[in-house]
Amino acid sequence: MTNTKPLTILIDMDGVLCDYTGAHLREVAIRYPHLTQYIEDARLSWRSEERFPAEYRDDIEAIALEEGFFEHLEPIEGALDAVRALANDGHDVRICTAPKKIHTYCVPEKYNWVKKHLGQEFVEKMIMTRDKTLTQGDLLIDDKPEITGAGIPRWEHIVFDQPYNKDVPNRRIDWGTYREVLGL
Amino acid sequence: MTNTKPLTILIDMDGVLCDYTGAHLREVAIRYPHLTQYIEDARLSWRSEERFPAEYRDDIEAIALEEGFFEHLEPIEGALDAVRALANDGHDVRICTAPKKIHTYCVPEKYNWVKKHLGQEFVEKMIMTRDKTLTQGDLLIDDKPEITGAGIPRWEHIVFDQPYNKDVPNRRIDWGTYREVLGL
Repeated sequence: MTNTKPLTILIDMDGVLCDYTGAHLREVAIRYPHLTQYIEDARLSWRSEERFPAEYRDDIEAIALEEGFFEHLEPIEGALDAVRALANDGHDVRICTAPKKIHTYCVPEKYNWVKKHLGQEFVEKMIMTRDKTLTQGDLLIDDKPEITGAGIPRWEHIVFDQPYNKDVPNRRIDWGTYREVLGL
Repeated sequence: MTNTKPLTILIDMDGVLCDYTGAHLREVAIRYPHLTQYIEDARLSWRSEERFPAEYRDDIEAIALEEGFFEHLEPIEGALDAVRALANDGHDVRICTAPKKIHTYCVPEKYNWVKKHLGQEFVEKMIMTRDKTLTQGDLLIDDKPEITGAGIPRWEHIVFDQPYNKDVPNRRIDWGTYREVLGL
């Protein structure tokens, strides 16, 4: 590794390691072809379902609760290599992810996804919590625009660049720029 | 609530909310009746399988990895009432539990257990992590004799009284004594 000290780096899953929005909106386009006009606009919203007509929002949101949704998400380009590289450089990389309120498929499938794409080593480093402010680390790499909770965060929130978080003033990375931005 | 300030209280599951050892050793007695002579001694060990003859240890340990093991654990007497009472008193109660390395049944069944016995409110307060030193809180109520990890803990480890942790000098509670010991 370089001469930086080892960091504890918390890395979110949806929108950072896995292409949640891509899969979700692809499925919307298949099921509701008459709504395709809304899809480009929906990419600009953290809660993309809010950009669709009100009568469809619940059903669109519920797509992500179905069996197989999380397990079949595609990795974001460069994400898996970056996670492995950070770990190989001596950083303590933890997959820190918030499950849906309805845990049935989401929770086991997130574990299965990490097992399949990153292996057992990273399964054992998973932190599944809906309140990331209670998790300690130096950095939290997350696409969510604002991360709130019951605790006083001890990490810096590094924004993972997505169309719906362009207004957030934090340090911002993607898997092509993270080394330079973070000085790693 | 009393005049104590609200605390963030992390509460472990196995050996604190659910009777892991009881279920495990009951199953050992059923499957290996010729080993019952070892069972009382096994209750004195954090890793109870270590008290059985070497050739049985792996199989005994693997009982807890089977489908249904975690989901069917019995609540420890007084545990569910205590969790609800602490939350009702204004404390921020989080179920903080470490899954087995083999996550397949353990992870979803721990969520199902909390849903069944404590309800959705506490499902949303679960923190599933193998390294509790990275979770922030004021107190961690845990039966594990020594809790180590990559972080500097910000909680006080309150030992939940069990036969295998009698030597630990920390403050010690069970669900009959916790209010007095913790001054709540």
